[in-house]
Amino acid sequence: MGMNIGIVGLGLIGGSLALDLRQQHTIFGVSRRPDTCKQAIARRIVNQASTDLSLMAKADVIFLCTPLGAIEATVTQLLPHLAPNAILTDVGSVKGAVVRAIAPQWQNFVGGHPMAGTAESGLDAALSGLFVGRPYVLTPTDSTPTTAVGTVAELARSLQSQIYYCSPEAHDRAVAWISHLPVMVSASLIAACLSESSPEVLNLAQSLASSGFRDTSRVGSGNPELGRMMAEFNRDEVVRSLHAYRHQLDQLITQVEQSKWNSLQQRLTQTQIARPSFLSDPQNLGKPSVKEA
Amino acid sequence: MGMNIGIVGLGLIGGSLALDLRQQHTIFGVSRRPDTCKQAIARRIVNQASTDLSLMAKADVIFLCTPLGAIEATVTQLLPHLAPNAILTDVGSVKGAVVRAIAPQWQNFVGGHPMAGTAESGLDAALSGLFVGRPYVLTPTDSTPTTAVGTVAELARSLQSQIYYCSPEAHDRAVAWISHLPVMVSASLIAACLSESSPEVLNLAQSLASSGFRDTSRVGSGNPELGRMMAEFNRDEVVRSLHAYRHQLDQLITQVEQSKWNSLQQRLTQTQIARPSFLSDPQNLGKPSVKEA
Repeated sequence: MGMNIGIVGLGLIGGSLALDLRQQHTIFGVSRRPDTCKQAIARRIVNQASTDLSLMAKADVIFLCTPLGAIEATVTQLLPHLAPNAILTDVGSVKGAVVRAIAPQWQNFVGGHPMAGTAESGLDAALSGLFVGRPYVLTPTDSTPTTAVGTVAELARSLQSQIYYCSPEAHDRAVAWISHLPVMVSASLIAACLSESSPEVLNLAQSLASSGFRDTSRVGSGNPELGRMMAEFNRDEVVRSLHAYRHQLDQLITQVEQSKWNSLQQRLTQTQIARPSFLSDPQNLGKPSVKEA
Repeated sequence: MGMNIGIVGLGLIGGSLALDLRQQHTIFGVSRRPDTCKQAIARRIVNQASTDLSLMAKADVIFLCTPLGAIEATVTQLLPHLAPNAILTDVGSVKGAVVRAIAPQWQNFVGGHPMAGTAESGLDAALSGLFVGRPYVLTPTDSTPTTAVGTVAELARSLQSQIYYCSPEAHDRAVAWISHLPVMVSASLIAACLSESSPEVLNLAQSLASSGFRDTSRVGSGNPELGRMMAEFNRDEVVRSLHAYRHQLDQLITQVEQSKWNSLQQRLTQTQIARPSFLSDPQNLGKPSVKEA
């Protein structure tokens, strides 16, 4: 049964959602930029597009796909236009701050986080099938209507995503570990190498760097604005994970300084054994405590 | 002009060297294990093999391809058998400790480090062409005879490696940054995640972990014995790099704790800009200060 789907923010995520959902639904898109609206219509990514949020009056479900920092202000402008039963959901990579800001303002709000992306951004980068097999986390609270959760879950399922349910707090703590902390760890590696004071050694290091450095430094050279937003909107959990990380690092430094080679090797054996548990195929069933049955 | 090449230690590196060098040279291999000797002969990786180091009496050039921790003891056992003009070289991933231990004992010794490998180990993993386009660092000292350096360089060139010359100290400092520090940084990330006390959050983190975590954690789950050896044999430089890293990490933590978002974004912009200088193709010319002209 086709619905009217609103998408506010026609970038990589909003555009990719539109490409998948337009198969079964009518898509209304809003962008700040008239050019983006034109392009979205010309490429038939949306059925209608506007720079004016009043277009959302027609929508049964609205996906908020702006950058994290714009979600709250967008909702304030959007609320006067919404149909009374409209369901609002967002795609932000942090959930606590977003849910705390929006849930009190709109009953039918469901926090969401489709965990997919590419190194690109903008409508040009939008892809159909971006969410296939990827996690789509929903973070309803005790007061979120189950019908609203069900409708958003149904849409996420139609993208062929794997749906996970958890609290906003559990989401933010989990993504701090596996998404936000790696960015900070990786960026600090690059920064440390740059602190080498001998040009000869720095030059040599740059020449000899290979796949190990390449992989470990990759997420530390991602979009700086996105990295800042992660830290800004998930500050408490990012700080907590950074302190836990520094504690582990300090233990390792002590082992090296004190030549505790057996202890160091034990530590590296533990991390070698543990890593595969973080690499399970997201399409693989077997995390029933958090994933949809 | 074919030489007699000795290879002590028929693992991934020793076996791969043999596979490439046997095209033009006669290969004599030594392994502690009789089975490995048999296999090396059966697969025609070597012309002769033995568990006895006296086989090296025939060799013009000997590559020491044992694990780092065994190099010094191997040389002590090997010296009585060497022809007077024999050239000795090693393939260890740390050079200072190795050069300090061996150079005083054998004039014609040239420290070397072919920077290639796979996730596998052992003779079964040996590959021809493993060193093509990869860096091969030579670390002669002021007292190393230029003829010995020239001979090892010629062999490295025949592997189609890119040859770099530097001091053992510059080598060890450079690889601490781009090879050893990433292992410690990456292992600490895995250890930090494992410190999460909530099973629900840990389970969720494991389920949601994706390419960012995968890449940043990869070298932290490598061979624990190799990680230990890096730290043990390159301790001073590894400690130095770890302290520099912790300093950068602490600055970043302070920025997050104090909500210095513009400073954090600047930091992430600097690392984004800097990373490509570490990813130059090793076959690319343009590092003339350290690389062979």
